[in-house]
Amino acid sequence: MAEKVQIFDTTLRDGEQVPGCKLNLPEKLDIARALEELGVDVIEAGFPISSPGDFESVTQISKLIKNATVCALSRSVQKDIDAAAGALKYAKRPRIHTGIGASDFHIIHKFNSTRDEIVERAIWATKHAKKYVEDVEFFCEDAGRSDPEFLARLVEAVIKAGATVVNIPDTTGYCLPEQYGRLIKHLVDNVPNIHKATISAHCHNDLGLATANSISAVANGARQIECTINGIGERAGNTSLEEVVMVMRQHKELGVYTDIQTQQLYPLSRLVSEKMRMIVQPNKAIVGSNAFAHSSGIHQDGVIKCRENYEIINPADVGVSESSIVLTARSGRAALRYRLQMLGYPVEKFDLNHLYEQFIEIADREKEVQNAHLQQMMSDLALSAVA
Amino acid sequence: MAEKVQIFDTTLRDGEQVPGCKLNLPEKLDIARALEELGVDVIEAGFPISSPGDFESVTQISKLIKNATVCALSRSVQKDIDAAAGALKYAKRPRIHTGIGASDFHIIHKFNSTRDEIVERAIWATKHAKKYVEDVEFFCEDAGRSDPEFLARLVEAVIKAGATVVNIPDTTGYCLPEQYGRLIKHLVDNVPNIHKATISAHCHNDLGLATANSISAVANGARQIECTINGIGERAGNTSLEEVVMVMRQHKELGVYTDIQTQQLYPLSRLVSEKMRMIVQPNKAIVGSNAFAHSSGIHQDGVIKCRENYEIINPADVGVSESSIVLTARSGRAALRYRLQMLGYPVEKFDLNHLYEQFIEIADREKEVQNAHLQQMMSDLALSAVA
Repeated sequence: MAEKVQIFDTTLRDGEQVPGCKLNLPEKLDIARALEELGVDVIEAGFPISSPGDFESVTQISKLIKNATVCALSRSVQKDIDAAAGALKYAKRPRIHTGIGASDFHIIHKFNSTRDEIVERAIWATKHAKKYVEDVEFFCEDAGRSDPEFLARLVEAVIKAGATVVNIPDTTGYCLPEQYGRLIKHLVDNVPNIHKATISAHCHNDLGLATANSISAVANGARQIECTINGIGERAGNTSLEEVVMVMRQHKELGVYTDIQTQQLYPLSRLVSEKMRMIVQPNKAIVGSNAFAHSSGIHQDGVIKCRENYEIINPADVGVSESSIVLTARSGRAALRYRLQMLGYPVEKFDLNHLYEQFIEIADREKEVQNAHLQQMMSDLALSAVA
Repeated sequence: MAEKVQIFDTTLRDGEQVPGCKLNLPEKLDIARALEELGVDVIEAGFPISSPGDFESVTQISKLIKNATVCALSRSVQKDIDAAAGALKYAKRPRIHTGIGASDFHIIHKFNSTRDEIVERAIWATKHAKKYVEDVEFFCEDAGRSDPEFLARLVEAVIKAGATVVNIPDTTGYCLPEQYGRLIKHLVDNVPNIHKATISAHCHNDLGLATANSISAVANGARQIECTINGIGERAGNTSLEEVVMVMRQHKELGVYTDIQTQQLYPLSRLVSEKMRMIVQPNKAIVGSNAFAHSSGIHQDGVIKCRENYEIINPADVGVSESSIVLTARSGRAALRYRLQMLGYPVEKFDLNHLYEQFIEIADREKEVQNAHLQQMMSDLALSAVA
C-alpha cells in the first residue's frame, strides 16, 4: 500500500521573500486559491510578525481557503507566536510553524546560547503555540549541519510538548542526498515518540540537490515535503514542488503518492512566474519552456518513432499541450519529413535528400527554421520545377 | 589521496543544440577559449556530420585549443565517424565520441534491431574511430533504462575494441541517484576490463536530479562528468557544471577533486548566457543572481552575525563579488541598522524602533527598499527634528 506524502507549499512565505519578487494582496489570494485547486495539503501563507502587510495577507488567506491547512511562521518568541495565532484566527485548519536553530553554528553564532537553553525555549514555544492551535509544526533550523544526537533530543522534546510535525531543514542547502536521508533515518531510529509526529523535509537548492535530498528524506521516512512553485525561495531557492511531485509519480517503487493534480502544474508555474515577475529558465525541469522540446536530429527521429524513446513524462500530465520538435541544423531527415507532412506537403513526391540539403542551408543561416522558411523553400522548389 | 574527476564540458554540443540558443563561430570560439581557461579537461565541440557549420566550428575549435581534449560526436555510422575525424584533424588531443542506443526501448523502437546486432555495430564503430585517434569515448545511449547485464556486456565489448572512456548516459533524466549509482557500481563489479577505461556520467535534468545523479555516479566509481555551463541542453538540460564542481569542492569526504578554477564560474555563466541568449533564472544554484542574496530578516541577522550561518560557499570562490542583503518588509532591525551604517548614518543617535517603523511602512509600499528610499527617510527625519 502506497503511503501519502503531504505537500507543504511555501511559495507565499519562503518563496515570496525573494529579492525582486513582488506580490500584492489580490495576487497572493489568486495564488493561494490556485494552490488549493492544485491539491496541496498545507499553504504556508506568511510570517505575520514581520510586517502589517504580511499579517493582513495571512488573515485574508485564512478566510479564503477551505480545505488546505493554512500555516503561519514564527520564531520561538511570544510576540511572533501570538501574531501567528492572531492572523490564523479565521483559518478552518490553522497550523503554527515555530522553531529555532538546531546546529551549533546557529546556537552559538546566532543565538549566543547553549543546547540546554535551546531545548527549553523550543519546549516553551511549542507549548505556547499549542494554547492556540492543535496543529503545531516545529522547525529545527539548520538541522542539516546539526549534531544528530542533539537533533534527536530536540525533536523528542518538542513532540512531547505537542508538536504534530517536525521540520528538519537543510537550511543552507549543504547536505548530499545520502547524508540527509541518513539524518532522517537517525530520527526514525532514535526518537522514541517519533511515530506521534510527521517528519517534514525542507531543503534548499544551493548545490542543486534540493529535489534529490527531499526524495532521499521520503525514502527514509519523511512524509511531508516543503516546497515552492518553480523552486523559488531564499538564495538558490527551495525544493521545486513540480519536481518532487513528478519524481514520486514516475517512481512508483518509492511506495508513496501525493494528492497533487499534476495537470495544473504548468499553468500554475506560469501564474506564479508572471505574478512574482520571477523568470523560469527554459531548461527548468518539468515547467521550463524547453522541458518538452526536442532539437537534435537523433532525438527528434527517436521521438517521432516512439515518444517514450526520449520522454519519460507525457507533457499532458503536467498541463503542457504537446512536446515540440524544433527544427535546427541538428535536425535530421525524419524531423524535416515529419514537419513538411504536418504542413500538408506531399513529401513522397520529392527527393528527401535534396530537400534536406536546402533545409540545412537555411538552418545554418537562420539557426531555428520556422514553418514560414519551409513554405518559402517549398514554394521556391515548385517555381524552379515549373521553370 | 583524493582522485581527480575529469570535467567534460558539452556546452558547445549538447548545450548548443537547444531551441532558441544562437551561437555564431566567433562566439563559439570565445566560449571554447573561456572553457579552457576555466580548466575543463574535455571540450565537446560539436557533431560534425550534422551540418557544414558544425563541421567548421569543430575544425576551428580544434585549431584554437591548446591543452584540453577536443571531442566530436558521431553515431555508430561510418560517415559520422569519418566527419568527426576530419573535423578533429588539427586538434592537439582529439577524441571521437561515438555510440549507440543500449536500452531495449532504443534497440527495438529506434533501431529496429537486436542486442547482438547492437554489440557488433558498437565494436565496429569503436574500431573504426580507433583508426583515426587513440582516444575513443563510447556512449551507451539510454543506459539509465537499459538492462544492467546487457549494458555490462556492451561496455566490456567496446573497451576490448579500444574505447578509453565509456559514457553511461541517463538520456531521459529518469534515474533516481541511488539507482544510477547502483548501475555504475554494477559495471565496476561486473565488467572484467573496466579498469582499462574511465567511466563517464552523462545525466539529464528532466526530474531535477542531474546533479545528484552525477555525484552518485562519482561516489560509485565514475571519474568523468559530462556537463554544461548553466545546465543548458536538450529539454530540461544537462548536468550543471557549476553545481557538480562545487559539490565536489564543498564535500571533501567524497575523496575527489577537479581542476576547475572556480572563481571563473560566475563570469563564464554570464558569458554563456549572453552569447546564447539563454536566461539563467535568479534562483539558479551557484550562478543565479539571487544565489547569494539574503532577504528574510532571520537570515539577514544571521549572515550579519556570521556569514557561515546561512552561506556554505564564499561568493568570492565562484567569482561573485559579495553576498547581498536585500531590504524588504521581511528584513529586521539588524539588517536596517547594518545598511544605514554602511550609508554613513550615525544609527546609534536614533531610536532604532522608530526608524524600523518608518522603514516597514516604506517596505510594505515599495517591496524592495533601495538606498535612495533610506536617504529620503533619514532626510525627512532630520527635517522633522529641526522643525
